[in-house]
Amino acid sequence: MGRPVTLFTGQWADLPLEELASKVAAWGYDGLELACWGDHFDVARALSDPGYTASRREILDRHGLGCFAIANHLVGQCVCDPIDSRHQAILPPEVWGDGDPEGVRQRAAERMKDTARAAAKLGVTVVNGFTGSSIWHLLYSFPPNDFSAIERGYADFAERWDPIIDVFDQEGVRFGLEVHPTEIAYDFVTTRKALAAIGRRAGFGINFDPSHFAHQFLDSQAFIEEFADRICHVHVKDSRKRLDGRRSILGSHLDFGDGDRGWTFVSPGHGDVDFESMLRALNRIGYQGPLSVEWEDSGMDREWGARDALGYLRRVDFAPATTAFDAAFRRGA
Amino acid sequence: MGRPVTLFTGQWADLPLEELASKVAAWGYDGLELACWGDHFDVARALSDPGYTASRREILDRHGLGCFAIANHLVGQCVCDPIDSRHQAILPPEVWGDGDPEGVRQRAAERMKDTARAAAKLGVTVVNGFTGSSIWHLLYSFPPNDFSAIERGYADFAERWDPIIDVFDQEGVRFGLEVHPTEIAYDFVTTRKALAAIGRRAGFGINFDPSHFAHQFLDSQAFIEEFADRICHVHVKDSRKRLDGRRSILGSHLDFGDGDRGWTFVSPGHGDVDFESMLRALNRIGYQGPLSVEWEDSGMDREWGARDALGYLRRVDFAPATTAFDAAFRRGA
Amino acid sequence: MGRPVTLFTGQWADLPLEELASKVAAWGYDGLELACWGDHFDVARALSDPGYTASRREILDRHGLGCFAIANHLVGQCVCDPIDSRHQAILPPEVWGDGDPEGVRQRAAERMKDTARAAAKLGVTVVNGFTGSSIWHLLYSFPPNDFSAIERGYADFAERWDPIIDVFDQEGVRFGLEVHPTEIAYDFVTTRKALAAIGRRAGFGINFDPSHFAHQFLDSQAFIEEFADRICHVHVKDSRKRLDGRRSILGSHLDFGDGDRGWTFVSPGHGDVDFESMLRALNRIGYQGPLSVEWEDSGMDREWGARDALGYLRRVDFAPATTAFDAAFRRGA
Amino acid sequence: MGRPVTLFTGQWADLPLEELASKVAAWGYDGLELACWGDHFDVARALSDPGYTASRREILDRHGLGCFAIANHLVGQCVCDPIDSRHQAILPPEVWGDGDPEGVRQRAAERMKDTARAAAKLGVTVVNGFTGSSIWHLLYSFPPNDFSAIERGYADFAERWDPIIDVFDQEGVRFGLEVHPTEIAYDFVTTRKALAAIGRRAGFGINFDPSHFAHQFLDSQAFIEEFADRICHVHVKDSRKRLDGRRSILGSHLDFGDGDRGWTFVSPGHGDVDFESMLRALNRIGYQGPLSVEWEDSGMDREWGARDALGYLRRVDFAPATTAFDAAFRRGA
Amino acid sequence: MGRPVTLFTGQWADLPLEELASKVAAWGYDGLELACWGDHFDVARALSDPGYTASRREILDRHGLGCFAIANHLVGQCVCDPIDSRHQAILPPEVWGDGDPEGVRQRAAERMKDTARAAAKLGVTVVNGFTGSSIWHLLYSFPPNDFSAIERGYADFAERWDPIIDVFDQEGVRFGLEVHPTEIAYDFVTTRKALAAIGRRAGFGINFDPSHFAHQFLDSQAFIEEFADRICHVHVKDSRKRLDGRRSILGSHLDFGDGDRGWTFVSPGHGDVDFESMLRALNRIGYQGPLSVEWEDSGMDREWGARDALGYLRRVDFAPATTAFDAAFRRGA
Amino acid sequence: MGRPVTLFTGQWADLPLEELASKVAAWGYDGLELACWGDHFDVARALSDPGYTASRREILDRHGLGCFAIANHLVGQCVCDPIDSRHQAILPPEVWGDGDPEGVRQRAAERMKDTARAAAKLGVTVVNGFTGSSIWHLLYSFPPNDFSAIERGYADFAERWDPIIDVFDQEGVRFGLEVHPTEIAYDFVTTRKALAAIGRRAGFGINFDPSHFAHQFLDSQAFIEEFADRICHVHVKDSRKRLDGRRSILGSHLDFGDGDRGWTFVSPGHGDVDFESMLRALNRIGYQGPLSVEWEDSGMDREWGARDALGYLRRVDFAPATTAFDAAFRRGA
Repeated sequence: MGRPVTLFTGQWADLPLEELASKVAAWGYDGLELACWGDHFDVARALSDPGYTASRREILDRHGLGCFAIANHLVGQCVCDPIDSRHQAILPPEVWGDGDPEGVRQRAAERMKDTARAAAKLGVTVVNGFTGSSIWHLLYSFPPNDFSAIERGYADFAERWDPIIDVFDQEGVRFGLEVHPTEIAYDFVTTRKALAAIGRRAGFGINFDPSHFAHQFLDSQAFIEEFADRICHVHVKDSRKRLDGRRSILGSHLDFGDGDRGWTFVSPGHGDVDFESMLRALNRIGYQGPLSVEWEDSGMDREWGARDALGYLRRVDFAPATTAFDAAFRRGA
Repeated sequence: MGRPVTLFTGQWADLPLEELASKVAAWGYDGLELACWGDHFDVARALSDPGYTASRREILDRHGLGCFAIANHLVGQCVCDPIDSRHQAILPPEVWGDGDPEGVRQRAAERMKDTARAAAKLGVTVVNGFTGSSIWHLLYSFPPNDFSAIERGYADFAERWDPIIDVFDQEGVRFGLEVHPTEIAYDFVTTRKALAAIGRRAGFGINFDPSHFAHQFLDSQAFIEEFADRICHVHVKDSRKRLDGRRSILGSHLDFGDGDRGWTFVSPGHGDVDFESMLRALNRIGYQGPLSVEWEDSGMDREWGARDALGYLRRVDFAPATTAFDAAFRRGA
Repeated sequence: MGRPVTLFTGQWADLPLEELASKVAAWGYDGLELACWGDHFDVARALSDPGYTASRREILDRHGLGCFAIANHLVGQCVCDPIDSRHQAILPPEVWGDGDPEGVRQRAAERMKDTARAAAKLGVTVVNGFTGSSIWHLLYSFPPNDFSAIERGYADFAERWDPIIDVFDQEGVRFGLEVHPTEIAYDFVTTRKALAAIGRRAGFGINFDPSHFAHQFLDSQAFIEEFADRICHVHVKDSRKRLDGRRSILGSHLDFGDGDRGWTFVSPGHGDVDFESMLRALNRIGYQGPLSVEWEDSGMDREWGARDALGYLRRVDFAPATTAFDAAFRRGA
Repeated sequence: MGRPVTLFTGQWADLPLEELASKVAAWGYDGLELACWGDHFDVARALSDPGYTASRREILDRHGLGCFAIANHLVGQCVCDPIDSRHQAILPPEVWGDGDPEGVRQRAAERMKDTARAAAKLGVTVVNGFTGSSIWHLLYSFPPNDFSAIERGYADFAERWDPIIDVFDQEGVRFGLEVHPTEIAYDFVTTRKALAAIGRRAGFGINFDPSHFAHQFLDSQAFIEEFADRICHVHVKDSRKRLDGRRSILGSHLDFGDGDRGWTFVSPGHGDVDFESMLRALNRIGYQGPLSVEWEDSGMDREWGARDALGYLRRVDFAPATTAFDAAFRRGA
Repeated sequence: MGRPVTLFTGQWADLPLEELASKVAAWGYDGLELACWGDHFDVARALSDPGYTASRREILDRHGLGCFAIANHLVGQCVCDPIDSRHQAILPPEVWGDGDPEGVRQRAAERMKDTARAAAKLGVTVVNGFTGSSIWHLLYSFPPNDFSAIERGYADFAERWDPIIDVFDQEGVRFGLEVHPTEIAYDFVTTRKALAAIGRRAGFGINFDPSHFAHQFLDSQAFIEEFADRICHVHVKDSRKRLDGRRSILGSHLDFGDGDRGWTFVSPGHGDVDFESMLRALNRIGYQGPLSVEWEDSGMDREWGARDALGYLRRVDFAPATTAFDAAFRRGA
Repeated sequence: MGRPVTLFTGQWADLPLEELASKVAAWGYDGLELACWGDHFDVARALSDPGYTASRREILDRHGLGCFAIANHLVGQCVCDPIDSRHQAILPPEVWGDGDPEGVRQRAAERMKDTARAAAKLGVTVVNGFTGSSIWHLLYSFPPNDFSAIERGYADFAERWDPIIDVFDQEGVRFGLEVHPTEIAYDFVTTRKALAAIGRRAGFGINFDPSHFAHQFLDSQAFIEEFADRICHVHVKDSRKRLDGRRSILGSHLDFGDGDRGWTFVSPGHGDVDFESMLRALNRIGYQGPLSVEWEDSGMDREWGARDALGYLRRVDFAPATTAFDAAFRRGA
């Protein structure tokens, strides 16, 4: 009962998939959401090596693990971003190439198309990821923004992603944008605008992750209800505010986990996310896909935390009502 | 009784100083904080035209207005910033020049030195302004920041501003950084770091403006107490949150005043700033300088608001205790 | 500057209009919203007596008072309600007649049509009022409601009010439902449903009164924004919660003003209504009509309160921005 | 240790008692609170069929389940209510009869007397239920209530229930009113009035259910303390508010569980009820009776929820202190 | 309209009454509550010098000031307290005498009787004051209290004050205990116990001061309602919490006004007291006596504050309803 | 994984150590923090009886229990306190002696030195305890404190404890003051002052107990961060506020557990303490010592509670991160 619980492998890229799968299965997870970095899932090889995707499945099968989605946040980020040295650190060398920004963006776009093709070969119908944004750095309007430049940012996003989503559509795979600061969409307003820009085409979905909403004071269940037709995948991650008048909600240019930040990511159930409300909203919209734990908490042992997160989800992910409350039930009070 | 109340002229640059002074005096203000743009105060002319500063004083005197500080936020912003087209819109042509970023930064630095010289000629001891920041755009660490790059940002700030403050010291003028997002310091953590970077030299002070703190959930009175020796000027400006679960604290890339933002600037007394606590803290640290209204509220008539703000301050800026509570008073309860 | 402030005469029906007008003018109000009971405005006479509406205007003119709307809540209430003895107390005898429920409802409907006609004769374009509701008493679903009966309630409303609004349309007058418990619409959900039932025809507007929203924990500014095209009149009334764990939000079947209630009506500015947010929302949607004080506070002297309410509104109803914040203003921070 | 945990069978009337008992015992419950509808407990048959009550006990005994109370909310509701078609759906045909309201009320009163007699035969000393109310529909005083009519409602309640409680007294059984909207008593004020009306006679007790208090903003522990001598049974049920400014606390005439309601019932531990405070208060007043789970949550699978509720209670229903904290303990700090 | 506003002279004992009266009258106060220290009101002289009380009245009359109560907190404090050197500082030498504790307490008791006699001579019917407490220092039970010692503290209070109140009764004067930490009664529980100890005799009343309730998180209006028959005088004083996680609600052994305290006293309207609720409660219980400003705010100029406080009260002390809301009014909504 | 969990034996002094150890081991605790009263640990005997400390260890070893600290709160309390009859009840007769206050204080000081010596013999490096305070009873400054007397209280503390800490230093044992009302330090301000008074010598540490901070509205994690170098031991105890406007935060002179108090102690996890934040702060400062349960809850069975507390800690005391989040992990989001 309840939904399948998977572990997103992005934060475990230092472990070979074989080793990770063994641990995760022993902890009791139902599957993995494979990251397209580390040795977990190699998009290029999936397309060039005929046996590759089967070999990945074989590892998962051996441990009794399912796979419902793959994730390529890092390459996706580079599709729209102004490119700087930080991007080199997150890209495969062949996508980075000579680092010329427009070239990087175009190669990243091609790689995202390939990711759809690779996903199809692996037999999954969802690719989660980021879009990047040409306007994120204009977040606080000083020097004053030319707001037509903001509008051009949404248009730029649509121009770059429309052809990518064409390939997704051809492959029968849906892209799930993780709505997130630094992306073209990170809240209600920007999600509405981004979806409008891309014509609300069905292939462009959302990988909902509540940890990016809590520190923005956004209502996760309201988001799920408004964008019900978009939610194709769910990340389970938490964040915790510490607003004591000395710590800024903006983060103070400190790394996640620093004690002086106003908020940081924590293991699921240890933060501000109201998972019960999120799950009730998912029940209402009929979401039946996986709950995929994206584990990140710099104050907790990683393996202790991954087990803790699973136990937490097993407790809180109750089954939705399977029969209607009929008149007979309603006779009580 | 109470402190002098001035109006910062930055948002009124469309009005000639003469006209503005006439209005402001009629409303009952005690003085003006002159912006170094529009025709309000021209730094270059102040240095080149022997009679200029006297002519400015003459206008003010004629309306019975004092002047305790001038402000050059726009040029200061360009000292450390990565330069883009937005900066052209806020700079005098001769500072912008050919727009080559490093050239712009260096010319802006020179102009800030001149601003100190011009302030001295005008007979004021405080220049308020911004510093810019080479690292602001790295606010959200994704793609993951190289945090040594953040540290280099503070060092870059110190290298660029140390020689500027040398001139301020020579002229007997203090620089008042308006702690503010997009600047090197915008909260407690970054102010501590910026001050440390510049060796806490006395000439580098703070123009405290609570409107930038309320939306970060920062405690204005705690800031005033911690940085008591820095506070050389105070802006009175307000901001108002609307966090209903649909509006993000990050602002959604919308302009100030847009109804869908999670917060915006409003006329003093109409927002979340706890002015009573701020004033009590200013009393405790012995601040006797002006309260300078920086009026900005896109939902209110500007002139109605400027009068409303003054009336508000006259009510809330109570006089601090002038005699100690001696034993006789304490006999009651 | 600011909007005209009127007094709704409904709670002053014990005073002759002449006497009331004299007081209200002396207090400084800009006009009256005439109630169709007491001697304030007699619908039947307005239609039968050719000089009547002019005589009403004459009284108002003599005191320099305007009239922007009339109100007929009591008759409107009887259009959809199940009729009981309480209705007899609020109806003119000729509308009550023999008290047979359906007959009462039909006569009330006719009288509402006449109210539109009378308003047109008086030269006002808004009639505020109630609709009644055939389903209000089913508020708490126990014994369990047959929810198709609820749907029939909306249909019944539409059937009864559609022909009334036909007359309003003919007369060029808009009906303003005061969204309110006991009416067909009292919150967001029911307003959406009621408007849908009546086909969102333009003649059916809303008289917005925030005092009915605060105790329901509803967001007045969000309502104004969602139903911007409906708001044709605004009541200024306040309510105050006292939720100390012993007092129920439901009211305990106690009369308004009783100290044991969980909430009650209070003079404007003395309660929980966030008038600043309401006024900013009205500014955003461009509402330029009157703010009509419906004064009701059982713990305050009526005349003291009416003056206090006017003074309060004069302070808080600031003028909206008349010029855009252009680039020049934006150069400050 | 801890109190016995029972399941109220009212919401499971679609299952035969035998089947339900089997499930409930397997889940680990200690007993059942039998509803007097479905096939769970038939009052008429208990009085007419000499072996009936023993047969019910036999089923319970076979599964190791106790029974501490029975419940007849549906018939009780009809003792004071204005009768309409909804009541027909909740009454046995012989009580409904021809549906003439006064006849229905009188037959319901007789059936409640029989319920006391049947309870005594079954060997339980508590019958939980509702009273109905002739005045509930006057909750919001518009058209304005004649408040003497409200007082008459309490008198009507006393007249109708006094003779019923006479039979309860004769049978040594106590009636436990579930204080609840739609009943004569639903909060502090109305409970005080209802108890006063009936002379605070001992046979009229309270079945305390906190789910009806949370959405009224009432303090459960304060209620338990004030009415300590009345609490003869406890329901464990939860409710959850969703007050986001768009959802009304009044419920919008929507069915329980609808996502647009401002509150709804949820499985114990999933809502706003502070069970720890409730249990501490029950400890303080010495309540040793059952905690009876009334399970109702339209967003959760019923059987998953019933097990979850039991597990929750086993964790939170700690044993009260059995020995005083003597001087020796107090030596620490 | 509104109640008379007086100034309590206790915190102004450094000024001669003549000078103080002149100032206070000029500010617009209606009267003075004379402190029995400084030269404001000398109890001993009032009894020994036949013309003294008339001379006091003459000063007040000359300035158009009334006097509704006198206050003798300092002597009252010494009736029950364990006596130490702090008491010497607050007592007249003849009451302190040799400082032997029991002697001091008995002389203080006699002086309180004289205060009643002096009040009667002055023509006032209320004496406000403190009682002291033999058990206050046992506030936090460590080392663990012998709680029978606490009970003896209430008995000691009653024994010492019963004979004092006898004299008050004889003189037709009521004692108004200012419920306050360090006194026998400082909250709901201790007020109930103290009143019970003294048999709730009518002569023992309460001078209600909300500033001592706000920092205890107590509900002023609930207190006024529970002890309605006791309230014979009201102090208007405010207090303000600063609970930022670093400042303790207990006060840190710092003097009032210190910036590191968790709360301190402030000028009325500048703190946490909900005066509107307090005034509504006073309206409900029919209190018609003075509102006496006890001004104490170590961060504000005393004279600025006294005027500010009066202005504040004139705004918020609205007149209670003088006529009932009759049926005519209720016809609106 | 996680820290060792011990039980503080102070509240179990009625049970012989042997019996207590047997129970505690069976519940699964890792060790005991022995109280120096009851028969748990006898300081005098430890110094006089060569085999005593070994015999204690033997009992612990037999049950597999560790011992990381001993506690002597009761004797420590008497070092600075004004002595009264309550102290006799908490002292060994030979320390009480004739009860002359100064003699008691000096003998208590000597016994604390012996406690350090005994701890060293037992092989533990921490002695927890209280200091007492000569000024606690001056908490609320009325009659007004002479604040130089407060300063003398800190000096008195330093004079009395400096020689005690000399012995602790010699023995290689650290004293851990439980910061607590009634002690010289009970919050941030007083801890800063007390540490300053004693020259921040290393031997004077802190036994952190969050239950004394929650009711003062103090931030436990901020305290741990500020006094990181002092934290040598941690108590796990909880407290719960009930601030409903009728219950005072000051406690009303009622015993812990009384239902009318505004706060009381409760079993860990049942109150207001934010243990997650506390544990994260302990992780950040690198505290690796025991979490010692000081169990006190007058509303819960003691043995039920001790097991519940252990289970709670096992769930919430997660392991801190053991490896840095390296670049690979950060590639996700």
